Amino acid sequence: MYSISPSNEKFEIPDNKKTVEEISIIKNLCKQERNNGKEIVVVIGLGYVGAVVAAVIADCEINDKNPYFVLGVDIPSKESYWKIAKINYGKSPFNVADPEVEKIFERTVNKKKNLKATWVKEAYTQADILLIDINLDVIKNKMGNARKFKVDIDSFKKVLRDIGDKINPKSLILIETSVPPGTTKKIIQPILNESFIKRKIDLNVNPPLIAHSYERVMPGKNYVKSINEIWRTFSANNEIALKKARKFLSNIIDTKNYPLWEFNNTNSSELGKVLENSYRAMNIAFIYEWTLLAEDMGVNLFEIVDSIKIRKGTHDNMMYPGFGVGGYCLPKDPLLAEWSSKFLYNRKVNLNLTLDAVNINDLMPHHVFELVKKGLDDDLNGKKIAILGASYRKDVDDTRNSPTITLYNEIKKADGIPIVQDPYANKIEGENDIKIENDVKSAIKGASAVVFAVNHKHYENLPMATLISNINKDSCVIDAFNVLTDEKIKNLKKNDIKVLGVGKGHIKYL
Amino acid sequence: MYSISPSNEKFEIPDNKKTVEEISIIKNLCKQERNNGKEIVVVIGLGYVGAVVAAVIADCEINDKNPYFVLGVDIPSKESYWKIAKINYGKSPFNVADPEVEKIFERTVNKKKNLKATWVKEAYTQADILLIDINLDVIKNKMGNARKFKVDIDSFKKVLRDIGDKINPKSLILIETSVPPGTTKKIIQPILNESFIKRKIDLNVNPPLIAHSYERVMPGKNYVKSINEIWRTFSANNEIALKKARKFLSNIIDTKNYPLWEFNNTNSSELGKVLENSYRAMNIAFIYEWTLLAEDMGVNLFEIVDSIKIRKGTHDNMMYPGFGVGGYCLPKDPLLAEWSSKFLYNRKVNLNLTLDAVNINDLMPHHVFELVKKGLDDDLNGKKIAILGASYRKDVDDTRNSPTITLYNEIKKADGIPIVQDPYANKIEGENDIKIENDVKSAIKGASAVVFAVNHKHYENLPMATLISNINKDSCVIDAFNVLTDEKIKNLKKNDIKVLGVGKGHIKYL
Repeated sequence: MYSISPSNEKFEIPDNKKTVEEISIIKNLCKQERNNGKEIVVVIGLGYVGAVVAAVIADCEINDKNPYFVLGVDIPSKESYWKIAKINYGKSPFNVADPEVEKIFERTVNKKKNLKATWVKEAYTQADILLIDINLDVIKNKMGNARKFKVDIDSFKKVLRDIGDKINPKSLILIETSVPPGTTKKIIQPILNESFIKRKIDLNVNPPLIAHSYERVMPGKNYVKSINEIWRTFSANNEIALKKARKFLSNIIDTKNYPLWEFNNTNSSELGKVLENSYRAMNIAFIYEWTLLAEDMGVNLFEIVDSIKIRKGTHDNMMYPGFGVGGYCLPKDPLLAEWSSKFLYNRKVNLNLTLDAVNINDLMPHHVFELVKKGLDDDLNGKKIAILGASYRKDVDDTRNSPTITLYNEIKKADGIPIVQDPYANKIEGENDIKIENDVKSAIKGASAVVFAVNHKHYENLPMATLISNINKDSCVIDAFNVLTDEKIKNLKKNDIKVLGVGKGHIKYL
Repeated sequence: MYSISPSNEKFEIPDNKKTVEEISIIKNLCKQERNNGKEIVVVIGLGYVGAVVAAVIADCEINDKNPYFVLGVDIPSKESYWKIAKINYGKSPFNVADPEVEKIFERTVNKKKNLKATWVKEAYTQADILLIDINLDVIKNKMGNARKFKVDIDSFKKVLRDIGDKINPKSLILIETSVPPGTTKKIIQPILNESFIKRKIDLNVNPPLIAHSYERVMPGKNYVKSINEIWRTFSANNEIALKKARKFLSNIIDTKNYPLWEFNNTNSSELGKVLENSYRAMNIAFIYEWTLLAEDMGVNLFEIVDSIKIRKGTHDNMMYPGFGVGGYCLPKDPLLAEWSSKFLYNRKVNLNLTLDAVNINDLMPHHVFELVKKGLDDDLNGKKIAILGASYRKDVDDTRNSPTITLYNEIKKADGIPIVQDPYANKIEGENDIKIENDVKSAIKGASAVVFAVNHKHYENLPMATLISNINKDSCVIDAFNVLTDEKIKNLKKNDIKVLGVGKGHIKYL
């Protein structure tokens, strides 16, 4: 059994014998590090957040000493084991724009020897501080139908039970996962109480110590700084947990420039997280709604947004038109709030505006599909259509919930031949059938339509001559991100290549 | 026939004889001012925008000289004539926090003698530049039903026809009124063309010169600066109009610090205006939707919003919970866009998210009414309920579309006795039956419930002892604006006065 990384490295998944060995290695290592005066931090979940968080904690120094030895834990599955293996080579599991990410894994694993990734749950027994950075997934049954969704709370509860069975009751459990507001009080604390009672731990003496603090990690060129040089909100279920969380976060975060924001109610920070992301999702959806009107009116909405965003403090959070919303948080965090409202608080009035925003965002790639159809006079049959961009965000390799998936499927259904290209991503998470072309020229060669689905710098810097000479003569370009600015195309000798811009009503020609 | 101002000054409405005199006065005055080297600017509509805009233009000096003599025009009706009369005494028609407003009317009318208000349409014939600052009203049939609305486009068209019949074809018509996007192209230009053709003006030689530029006037303590020290967007229907508008605005606006934003398509600036205000309305509605969830969860949403707004550039436009939306623009501008979408562009997909936002905002005072009922155990019968705040915004007297109206009506319907108090406003526009109490003590004396419906400084500074000693012992306070912060009430000796805060789930006691 092997686990294969997105960049095609192959790692053997450990067998039982290896696992038994690993347990004793971990125990010895922790004993030794504790003797060196370090506390043991266990980070569960080595995804886009947990992996880099683990490295940042391992990199932390107070008076030239590392206060924490870090164990990063993930599952030894085909889908996940490669992350463990790569980290233990001192490599970043993710291919990102921030050069600090590669450096911090090299430094903490190979030089400081202060970070180890593992797959054994026995690590939980060693934790002085245990961070939860696992996923809490939301499953939508289809795009544009956000009211029908499921929250995979069972997987989350299972991890909590494992922790409750193993953790030292005096250790801090710090939840970083985005959860439905109310989860610490109504789900996590009851599970841990139950585990502790089973273990005959007196809850009056040793109540579970639970803190909640949310990450604002942004995969991109300031990946590392988006963990330790950023505002951090936290809360806890009691004074001891609050104090422990305060101390830990103060060591990790640049609190001189970014003082901690403390709530005495875990509901507050949990709500804060999903509200923060829902606000963003709403702002995107709002502009998407107006994008269609702007197109009908023949105006350039990018420029209009610029003319309004100039009002700092009241209007500068306005978003631009685009291709849709992806990533792990924005498509689902509004639904976590809705789930909380419905199932944890039995509310009748729910978050209708917010759910509609999710639907609008999820259907935005469908609008781009409509523009492709318009550009090709409704006939996609057998035509090559190049989608430039697999990741959902400029200059990152993160393909989670990428809107490219929706467009890809719609083109296929209409008998077109979609080709996806991306300079960063080698695959689309969860979509093994979609191949990613690495070379932009071969992706666009002979295409009848080219879609700019993200504004990677490679696309912004793509010479117009390369674009024009490679695609078909009577083809069209669908530009979702104003990659082909008016400025860029105004002095070109005109061919018959139509440019249809999202949020730009006038058809231009290349 | 008299016209009575909100502060109860009584002015005789001019008769025919006076009007004939006025026409000749105006003509002589303009002739004389033109001989002094000034251009004549006519501002139609002396409301919250037009009145102060007229004064700002009259106050403008280039090389120590006034380039413009200004005529402000409004209707000699019971509702409007008092504005004309007050301005001609050198008084501001509005009672506002900005001391500059009183000074600018005194200076331009009495000292510089560069501004005159009038009611005669013959003023239009004198204009070198004619500004349109009249209302374009939207009529909703009821709150919470924003999809059923009417735009009073006929009144607007009528003014345009009057202008077309009278204006010098070489003069610039500058529209400042918020209009459905597309209005200049699809409504204004055709009307003016028709008038010009009737007047045998050759449209090829003298096409109507129409510019659109929207105001960002904010009644409040920076009223005047919100006209001339702020970003300004404009557009025009042809090059000559664009040039004239650019020159005029450059004279009026501090373009050194706030360079003009120029569009070559009137649709762009028209869309910009309603988008800008709709964005704001949407942001308010979004937080209102989450307010109800926060209340059920027992958290303080004001604090949570603070913890998120700290992220400048991405999250600092977030709004706080509150009482609803009022004023002239935010309740209606989203509907102007919807009207345009439906009737000027025949679009099938409309602005659903945006319309829902309008509904949420319009129903927010209903939520406050629900809190009043909760605080009074569902029994309002014969109880005095003091609504503190008639205007819709902190420290202004502007009562247009005030959410206080909705709450007032709901309390009355439930057989409560609503008393409205406001330190700035003497009446609520369009609601002559609602009396405004000036003194806060007599308003709250013996009240069973007190509602903080706006955060005027008078309310924020109201001593807690005054509040507690005047209201009933078992009364309640409904606080829509976090006027009674936790800080303020934490050290009080507790009585039985319940405090229910909008966006604050825990009931506190005074």
